[in-house]
Parts: sequence; structure tokens; C-alpha cells
Amino acid sequence: MAVRLITGVHATIGTHSFSMPRDGAPTQVPMRHVEFLRLMSLASCSIHSSHVASLSCKHIIRTTTIEVPEGEAATGQLLEKSVNTIRFLAIDAVEKANSGHVGMPMGCAPMGHILYDEVMRYNPKNPYWFNRDLFVLSSGHGCMLQYALLHLAGYDSVSEQDLKHFSQWGSRTPGHPENFVTPGVEVTTGPLGQGIANAVGLALSEKHLAARFNKPDIEIVDHYTYVILGDGCQMEGISNEVCSLAGHWGLGKLVAFYDDNHISVDGDIEIAFTEDVSARFEALGWHTLWIKNGNTGYDDLREAIKEAKAVTDKPTLTKVTTTIGFGSPNKANSYRAHGSALGTKEVEATRQNLGWRYEAFFVPEDVKCHWSCHVPRGAALEVDWDAKFAEYEKKYPEDAATLKSIISGELPPGWADVLPRYTPEGPEAATRNLSQQCLNALAEVLPCFLGGSADVASSIMTLIKTFGNFQKDTPEERNVCFGVREHGMGGICNGMALHSPGLIPYCATCFVFSDYMRAAMRISALSEAGVLYIMTHDSIGVGENGPTHQPIEHLMNFRTMPNILVLRPADGNETAGAYKVAVLSRKRPSVLPLSRQKLPHLPGTSVEGVEKGGYIISDNSTGNKPDLIVLSTGSELQIAANAADELRRGKTVRVVSLVSWELFQEQSDEYKESVLPESVTARISIEAGCTLGWQKYVGAKGKIIGMDRFGASAPSGKIFKEYGITVESIITASRSL
Amino acid sequence: MAVRLITGVHATIGTHSFSMPRDGAPTQVPMRHVEFLRLMSLASCSIHSSHVASLSCKHIIRTTTIEVPEGEAATGQLLEKSVNTIRFLAIDAVEKANSGHVGMPMGCAPMGHILYDEVMRYNPKNPYWFNRDLFVLSSGHGCMLQYALLHLAGYDSVSEQDLKHFSQWGSRTPGHPENFVTPGVEVTTGPLGQGIANAVGLALSEKHLAARFNKPDIEIVDHYTYVILGDGCQMEGISNEVCSLAGHWGLGKLVAFYDDNHISVDGDIEIAFTEDVSARFEALGWHTLWIKNGNTGYDDLREAIKEAKAVTDKPTLTKVTTTIGFGSPNKANSYRAHGSALGTKEVEATRQNLGWRYEAFFVPEDVKCHWSCHVPRGAALEVDWDAKFAEYEKKYPEDAATLKSIISGELPPGWADVLPRYTPEGPEAATRNLSQQCLNALAEVLPCFLGGSADVASSIMTLIKTFGNFQKDTPEERNVCFGVREHGMGGICNGMALHSPGLIPYCATCFVFSDYMRAAMRISALSEAGVLYIMTHDSIGVGENGPTHQPIEHLMNFRTMPNILVLRPADGNETAGAYKVAVLSRKRPSVLPLSRQKLPHLPGTSVEGVEKGGYIISDNSTGNKPDLIVLSTGSELQIAANAADELRRGKTVRVVSLVSWELFQEQSDEYKESVLPESVTARISIEAGCTLGWQKYVGAKGKIIGMDRFGASAPSGKIFKEYGITVESIITASRSL
Repeated sequence: MAVRLITGVHATIGTHSFSMPRDGAPTQVPMRHVEFLRLMSLASCSIHSSHVASLSCKHIIRTTTIEVPEGEAATGQLLEKSVNTIRFLAIDAVEKANSGHVGMPMGCAPMGHILYDEVMRYNPKNPYWFNRDLFVLSSGHGCMLQYALLHLAGYDSVSEQDLKHFSQWGSRTPGHPENFVTPGVEVTTGPLGQGIANAVGLALSEKHLAARFNKPDIEIVDHYTYVILGDGCQMEGISNEVCSLAGHWGLGKLVAFYDDNHISVDGDIEIAFTEDVSARFEALGWHTLWIKNGNTGYDDLREAIKEAKAVTDKPTLTKVTTTIGFGSPNKANSYRAHGSALGTKEVEATRQNLGWRYEAFFVPEDVKCHWSCHVPRGAALEVDWDAKFAEYEKKYPEDAATLKSIISGELPPGWADVLPRYTPEGPEAATRNLSQQCLNALAEVLPCFLGGSADVASSIMTLIKTFGNFQKDTPEERNVCFGVREHGMGGICNGMALHSPGLIPYCATCFVFSDYMRAAMRISALSEAGVLYIMTHDSIGVGENGPTHQPIEHLMNFRTMPNILVLRPADGNETAGAYKVAVLSRKRPSVLPLSRQKLPHLPGTSVEGVEKGGYIISDNSTGNKPDLIVLSTGSELQIAANAADELRRGKTVRVVSLVSWELFQEQSDEYKESVLPESVTARISIEAGCTLGWQKYVGAKGKIIGMDRFGASAPSGKIFKEYGITVESIITASRSL
Repeated sequence: MAVRLITGVHATIGTHSFSMPRDGAPTQVPMRHVEFLRLMSLASCSIHSSHVASLSCKHIIRTTTIEVPEGEAATGQLLEKSVNTIRFLAIDAVEKANSGHVGMPMGCAPMGHILYDEVMRYNPKNPYWFNRDLFVLSSGHGCMLQYALLHLAGYDSVSEQDLKHFSQWGSRTPGHPENFVTPGVEVTTGPLGQGIANAVGLALSEKHLAARFNKPDIEIVDHYTYVILGDGCQMEGISNEVCSLAGHWGLGKLVAFYDDNHISVDGDIEIAFTEDVSARFEALGWHTLWIKNGNTGYDDLREAIKEAKAVTDKPTLTKVTTTIGFGSPNKANSYRAHGSALGTKEVEATRQNLGWRYEAFFVPEDVKCHWSCHVPRGAALEVDWDAKFAEYEKKYPEDAATLKSIISGELPPGWADVLPRYTPEGPEAATRNLSQQCLNALAEVLPCFLGGSADVASSIMTLIKTFGNFQKDTPEERNVCFGVREHGMGGICNGMALHSPGLIPYCATCFVFSDYMRAAMRISALSEAGVLYIMTHDSIGVGENGPTHQPIEHLMNFRTMPNILVLRPADGNETAGAYKVAVLSRKRPSVLPLSRQKLPHLPGTSVEGVEKGGYIISDNSTGNKPDLIVLSTGSELQIAANAADELRRGKTVRVVSLVSWELFQEQSDEYKESVLPESVTARISIEAGCTLGWQKYVGAKGKIIGMDRFGASAPSGKIFKEYGITVESIITASRSL
């Protein structure tokens, strides 16, 4: 799309012409622009007409001497100036904060410039425009690169003030990119390798949606995912996992730049990283390119992107050899440019070296003016797409409605009614199997519910029977086969969850192997990605496979992680309840630990109970004063119920299902008191997991039945017995209370 | 080495000749054998002379018609029979347990046979002989392969009875290989990818020790590490991490077999794994080979091993294409042969198909006889090595003494005295820096203390200043540069710790990135690998880098993991104490969370206190009845101390450092009562981490100051203040008690 900005008089954006007076307000708003404003309601962030005014580029008007390029691309001096602006915004912000990573932005500024100024399609005033190109900074420590670019491009989320408050309390420019703080940042990166995994998830989502919604005559889903990753990301195992999948899936719209600067925290990567990265990527099924001079090779960058886009059946990795801290006379190409401010003296030397005569945080007028085209350009892009969508809606109303719901995240009315209900008379079943019933029911009604497992679908029970496998040539399908790549699976699902509000990803493995993906799960929690983590084989109930496969501490570990729900259902109704909560929880991921072994459907369990996190499933007391309260979760709730049946011969006993500690904690004090009255200190908990943590609900005078050692190989019934996770243990404990 | 067993009369083992009567007891024990028995005291498992009797091969004597091969290798029918014996031991054991993984052993039996019968040097009667070749079954689910091999080779750890009790309560044949249960199993595998990581650690250890102790005239350290890994291991990111390092380090004695059977739990790996594995390994700097028929290509296997050994500067990956469940007419080459018993009918069909006319668990006499050579052969190998060691000791007494201490694990007397002590007058210092002082002090006295960090040595402070980097050409050095590969680092350190009792590995990263290596750390705990995990940047004290880099739940998470010590020191003396405990803790790994920020040396802290896990650092009460107890750990202990100073104006206040909950838990009830008297319920805890768990020590009536949300980007002091981890919070809390 050609954008010509002619000094103070006229602007052409695509096919739209604007005439403007000298005060900067457009005199005519073309018809399609009006249409665009109307259509904006589709997206989650509205554009106000005042934004259109930014088209006027006041600076063009006031600085008539400034050269304004005819085409899209800045060239020559202006290009260098723009790139140096990015470098110095990073330098100045890190210097002011006296914290941060300056070397990467200095080296990657050319890549950043080309991507944000020439290649990517986005609308700065609506960072959530659905069909935008997506950018992921996998080397998240270099976030000042992205903040500088967002600032120049006209995103409201990164003002000059924000740049000046880089990594300070309450700022929108935290020390690593956070999607939940800074609109324009797609995902949360910093922990290395997570970003490239998210990017694979984003590209997968695009491929899936494109396959489902594009029509021969209208390509309504069509965007690229660009990612910059560094040596650190390359070393992390997760990146190999996800890149193997990206190659397998043929994610042709994933365009990755490997910032090959040869420096990491400890110095030259020669000490630990001498593999042939490009050859590895070729082995993974990627198209690879190499730009030997990433510091000034603008045309090479342009060509590489063109070539990457031309290769539609493979993702492309372009190795871009750069100099970390480019421009710093004494710290460039050294670890000293990596993780701290340059220091006043070196900043000055760098200013000298790059001929930068401006004060800190200054954006030269011509650079500002050049970048100012992105606001109108972005608006026009969205207008175009909106028009296309209107046409699509006319021709394909059903698909349009579905896509709309995926974009908005609105769930279909009555969706939760499909979740199965159970009665105590029903046959015993493992919650992993009950989970599969829920998954299959939900897949019928939720428009974009998709996921899979880390190569254990047949054991973890995640197969959606009405769909085939998402594969290179069948991207419209919904069973995603992640292979034995738990960590990558989690990272990919984060990307999927953050692609569109209505895209609800689930992923599954044995609970103990959550250890492999903990880092990605924590990013789910932090970045508000509502992934469903289906975690079967959730205790010593695993049996013969032994202690390497038996989680002990895992339940409590996720209960301590912020912003994540742990829902450990005991039977069918609780499993359905867990799914209901998890699907509704779009900004908080859910962990569903499920049993391998069969369990009875218990009287008293309910979906509504699960929604409260903790509730009474049975009680023979009156007046909220039972003699004893037995608390439990999941597969041990039946043991609690059985023990209560015996104990009730002489006592009043209440059985409480504490299925989700987080949800219970959020209930009113009255409700909590009605379930766990403070005056009743005779309490026993039973759970096949570690005891530390249960003190919170059992109190100083109660008894905790659990296990603080590793499991063992044996049939599961035997292990429960040997470890004392039994009715007898509860009865014995009750005697000592 | 030629082993000839001639019917019932005579045996030759290397240069040793034995004559035997028909009752099987050797009449003459050659001199060198006596020498061997004497030398055995060097190793950690003693051989009793009765073992020598197994030399007699009773079966040879009784079954005179059986053909006994002249050379080492079984060939023709005997070879097939031996391989089928391995297959059927696996089939029968899994069938009896009705649990386990039978397909892998059926496919890999040829590899297993060649390795254990023809290639590997080991002594079945002393599984801990130092210079043995090491075998790692990274596809740990196929453990029946290894159990069958250990059984045939004559290891006492796997009797027929053990095979019959596969994966049952109390058996020595758990559902996945466990080094701490079954002598002969080197490491604990099952969680995929861990085994290959351990193998890299074992091979690194050999390379390091060989470089330090071998002499031009005596090669005293000289053993190979063999590993079998499958598709699952290959998909896991950790395997790419460690294989990248193995290539970088040029671990020529690492010989890996990739069981390329194309099947995983979910079926043909075509659905998720289409990369070119061999090309990837070449990119990682490995030598690669491919055996297209791993089912019967014995000569190819022999040749491959020869070639792998000939390539001394690179590890070798041999892709061995096998058929999972080889021999099963209806389940071979299918996921149905992977993770469960074949079933009575299919077992029968497989017996028919392979012409196996024996009952379950039967080892044919000729096979038994053939394998019986390994006991004397192994004894002789050890005798030879012991003789070599005696010579070495004579020529190089100092090196011999050092190597001996590494083999035995005996620490030099007074080693802990080198740990620095501090006084409150000393300058404030971050515990990460104090840690470096301890590391450097210990490196001077501990004979094989080595490790490094995941590319953050300069920030994590792990550099040992008197040593260089362990590299391909400088393997005698002790700073190991792991690159940004936390998970691989943990797995490699497990291998190092389990290589020799005196090899003490440490590894380091930011505490929050323990999430990347949790799976390996859990294996440390389970497999009793005494790795030191140095985890700096242990709280919101991280500051500007923000929530992705700030651990919250991690402290409590490791406190809930079985068999791992968490030691969070508050200052210099506690750091020294933490190191003392960690070094002594050879069968329990230690996690040392350390501060980024400077901390004062507090009055009252001590090494001895740390050894008790929890202790009083200050108190103005008498009679064990303070008005208030303030509990804390690490960087918050100074806050507790400062608050106590203020509160003591009107109250008696005790400050308790709860530096290691595990150690405190292990103290006597009297001691615990002396620190935390039950009668004192006015308790406040303060820790910059999650609150769940603290209820155990604070009780129902106390107050817990902590944080149950993610951190933020800001200078660390600001975050502490905003989150209320302050003196003021303690004082406010004390008012409400």
C-alpha cells in the first residue's frame, strides 16, 4: 500500500484521499472512513474520530523543509536517523532507569525499523484489530526495542512519559514485555524461549482460522507472525520443541529473525554454543536465510522478508548477524553491552560515534513525521478489512457470526448445558475419562475449542472424536498432536489463548510432567492466558509406573502459584463443574488434576459446589456444629465419604470437598464460615499429596493425612494402603482428636 | 578379552586360569584374584569370595550337550536365543504385572544383547566398580530390557524372583529404572529426556577425571557411556539442550543409540515428529550413523560401536531402526505394543511366531551358560584395573589419593573450616556474592567440586577464580558453561553426582528459572543425587526485571518436594552454613535461594544454627515465653530483626531464622519446642513469597506477611514497600495479635 504524505495539504492512504487545512484537522472524512468507524465495533478496542486527526502530521506542516519520502520506506539519512532514534530511545530509557538491556535494541534496531515501518500491518490506535500482523520479541529483555517502536508507530500505550519511566513502579513499560500491561505487546516474554513458543501458537491459530474461515473469494484471515529471538532462546530446549512442530506443521506465515550477535550474559557464546543453528533448523523443516550484516543491511532484510513470505509451506528463520550494542565504541560486541546501562560516559561516546546530537528521549521531527503515517495507514488497513468483513458477512453469514464470536470471545448461549451430569447410580469412572466426555461435549458447542496432548491422548483421554488432527494439510481440524513436548505445548497454548478471546486452548499430559512445562504455565498465569491444563494420573493412583510418574507436591505447588486455578474434581459432576469454571475463566488458566483410577459418583457433589471451590457434600449435624469435619479433594473424597459413613455411627460428621482452594478463598466470609465454622477445630484432611499447606484449613488441632515422600511401584490400591491414604487412617485420626 | 569356558573343567579369563571340580567351587583362586579381593576395598561395594563360585557355571557341568562358544560373542542360533530370552523375560514380566512397556524391550533386545554381552565392561558382582562402562536407558519405560540384561549378566540385584515381581510393592524391579533401588542401574529414568541428560553428565565426568588423572603411561580413567533413547526423548527439549553441549564438549566416549521405531503412545510419530533427527545431530556436532535393520542387524551394531569408538572427538548417535514389539504377530509396529501387556493370546502368538517353546521366565540353559562368563569376566576386569591402580598409586601417590577420595566420596579432614565467617561489622553483601566466596573456598579443598551456571555466571556469581572453563580441549578445568539450558544443566548435574560419590556438582541460575529445570531437580531428589542448586535473585528483590523474573511460589514449592533441602540464608554466616550442609548432603540435593540485593550480617546468625534448620537469632524474653515470635528467612530476616528491635521497647520478642524447614523438622521435639514453644501463639512470619504453607509454623492465631500475587517492575526497595514486606507491616500485625 502506497502512502504519500505531501506537505501539509493532502494525504493519500491506499485509495483514500484526505485534504487537510494547516491546523491539522481533516476537512473531509471520506465515506469509507465513516464506514470504518461504524465497523470498529467488531473489534475490542474502539477508535475515536479524534485519532483520525493524527493524519494531519502537524510536523509536516510546521517543518516544511523536512524531506518527506514519496514511498513507504525511509531511505538514506532518514532511515539511519530512524534506526538511531530507536537505539537512543533504548539507550536513554535504560540509562535513566539504570537497569535493563540496551545492547539488543541497539543491534536489532534495523530489524525493528524494517518490520514496524515497512512490513507489518497494524493499527496503532486499535492494538487489538483482529487481522493485524503479530510481533513477538522472544528476546524479551530487549523490550526497549519494542517500546521504542510502539512509541514511534503511534501506540497510545507507550508515551514519552512511559519511556522515561521504563521499568518503574506502575509504568506501562515494564522490565520485560507484558501483554497485560502494554497494548501492542502480544505476549509476555523474558523467560527465554517462551516467545518463540508463543509465536508458534499465534501462527498455528492464524493457520487454523484461515483454513476454517477463508473462502475462495474472500481471504478474511490473513496475517503474519514475526518474531525476533536470540542466542539465549536458541539454546533453550523449548525453542527446539516448538520449532520442530512449526516445521512439521508447515507454518509458512511464521517469519523468525535470529539475532545472531554471538554474545550472551557470560560473554562470547563460543564457550557454550557452537552448533550450526541454521542446519538444525533445516533439519526441523524450516526455510533458512542468512544476513551477514544485520547492522546496516536494510535491503538484505527487505529481501529476506520477501523471500520468507514467498515460501508458504515452511516457516523461515533468517539468521541476522548483528553487533550487540552497535554504535557503542567501547562496549559493542561485548557482554558489557548486554544487561546494564551503558553509563553516562559511554552514552556520550555513543552519541559522538553515531553523530547523535539530540538530548535524551528526543525524537527528531523528520523521524516523527515519517512514522506518523502509521496511524492513518493502520486505520485504513482496518477500514479495508472491515469492508471485506462486511462483504463476507453478507455472503457467509454463519461463518461470519462464528468468526465474530471468536474475535469477541462471546460464548454461545447455553453452552454449559451440554456438560454431562451424573447420578451416584452411574458406573464408576476415572475422572480422566469423564474429562473426555466434557471435552467432546464442549467441542460441539464452543466455536474454537482446540488442543491436544503431549503424545498421550489415548491415555490422557483428550481426543475429540468429531474432529481429525490439526496437521500441515488439515489445519482446519482441532486435535493438536504436540508430540512429547510438554514445555513447548504450554508455550504454544499461551500463544493460542492470546491470539483471540474466543480461541480456547486445552492441553494435556500426566500431572507429574507439569514439571516440564511449569515455566510456560507460569506465563499463562502471569499473561492472563486462559489455557486449560488437563493433568491426568494425578497421584500415587498411577500405580505400577512408580515414583517418577507419581505427583506428590504438584497439587500444592499450583495452589501457591498466583492467578491460576487448581480444580481437582472427585467425580463426574465435579469434572463437569471444573470444565464450566475453566471455560469461563478466560484470564486465569486452570489446572485440572484428574485420576487414572476409577471413582464412584458421590452423592452430594455438584457443578454449583465446584463453582464455590469448597462445599459440603454430606453432613449429619445441625446448627453448623459438626463434631468433625473431614476435608478432601479428588480421588480421596470417596475415602472421606466412606470414613464419614462409618464415623457417623457415633458422631456428627461433615464432609467438605475442597475442589478449588482459590475459588473457596474468594467466597464471602459468611459462606466460608458456613462450610468451615471457626469453632469446629476437629478437622481431618485427606489428600494423596504433600501435607504442607493443608494447615491453612485443618488448623493447629486437626490431623492431616497425606504423603511427604515419593511414591512407589505397585498396583495403586496397594500403594494407597501402604501410605495410609485410607478410611482406617481417618478413623484412627478421629480418635486422637 | 577372550573368555573360553570349557565344559566343567577349566575356565580362562584373560590371563587367569581356573580349574574347577564338578561341584562348582573353584579349587584354585589365582594370586591376582586374591589381589583383586584385597583391592576391592577401594570401591563402595565389596565382592565376597562366594561370588567367585559363579565362575563355575554349574549348568555347563550338568548340561554337557550344550554348545559353548569359543569366543566372546554368541552367534547364530545362540545369539537369537539370547535375544529372544531378553524379549520373553520382558514379555513375561509385563504380562504377569499386567502393566509396563513391552514393545521397546522386544525391539531393542538386539542392541541390549550386543552391549551387555559383547561391548560393555562391567563387574556384575560389583555394580559400583569405578571404571565400569556406564549404561543409561533413557527410554526408561523399557526398563524390562535392562532388568533382563542385568539378570542374565549375573547382577544379584535382579533375581528371577525380582523379574516375577516386576513393578510390585517392594521389588527391586520398579516400573521405571531407579538407581537407588537396583544396583546396576546408574541413574533414574522414565521422565523422557532425563536419561540422555544424565548420560551427558556421566560422560562429562569421565572426560574430566580422565583429563585430570590419566598419565602418559597409565590410563586409569577410561570408560564409555552408552545410552539408548527413543523418539520420546528426541522430542523433549532437554535432549536437544544436552546434545548440543555434548557436541560442543566433544564427548567422544558418549555412544548413543536412537531407537527409531517410529511409534509412540499416540501411534505413528508421523503425526508429530517429522524432522530429520540425524541431520539435527550433525548440526549439533555429533557423528551420526544409521542401522536400517536394528531387529537382526547384529554385525551392523557391532560395526557401529567400533566406528563410534574410533571417533574420539565427537559423540556418536546411531539411529537404529527397529520394530516396536518385534515378534508379536498382531501388535508389532503399533502403539498397542507400547504401553501395556500383550495379553495372554498375543503372548502365545508371539511364542509361536518366534518359536519360543519355553515357559514364562525361563532362561534356556545354553543362554544362561553363555552369559555366565560375565561374572568371572567382570571380576577379572576389575582385578586388572586394581592392579593398574596399584601401579598408579606407586608412581603417583598424590593423584591416587585424590582419585581414591573421589571414588569413595570421603571428604578431606577439616574441609569445612575454609568456609568464611562474618561479623555484623562486615560490609553488607548480597548472599549471591557471599555464595561465590564459599564456592571459591570450597573449590580449593574439595577434590572434585565442579559446576557452573546457565549463562549467568557473572550475575549469579558462580565463577571459580582459580580454574578455567571446562571445554573440549580443557576438560581438566572446573567451570562448566552450560549456556542458557537450565533443564539440561540439572540433568547433566544428576549424571555428574551419580558418577562418583566424591564428584560434587553445583549449578546455578535465577531462582525463578528453576521452573525450567524442575523435572531434573525432582530426579535429583528421587535419585539421591546430591546436586547443589544455587538459585540467586530469589524474590521481588530482583527489582526492575519485573514479574517474569521474580519468584513468588518457588520457595514453598521446593519445601513441598520430597528429599530436597531448601536453605535460604540471610547473611554471610548462614550462607557458609548452607554450603556446609549442602556439601555434606550427598544423597539429598540442596536448593540455595540467594539474594540479588545487599544484606547486612546479622548478630546471632550462625553455621550451627543453619545446621538445625531453625534457631533463635535474638530474644529478650526469659523462660521460653516471649510475647511474640517473629519468623523469617533469607533477605527478610533483617526486616524481622529490625522490627523486633522496635517492638522490644514494650514487649519480649524472639526472632527465629527458619533457614531450612526440612532440617528444622528433623530436630527433636524438645529442640523444636525450645525454639517455637507451643504456648506462644502470637507469631508473625515475614517472607517475600507466597503465604500458603506458613500456617504450619505461624498457627491459626498468627499473622503471615508475604505475597500471593505476581511481582512488578520497579527498584526492589519500592516493590518491598508497595507489597508491604516491611518493618511497618510487622509492627501493624503485632498490634492485632
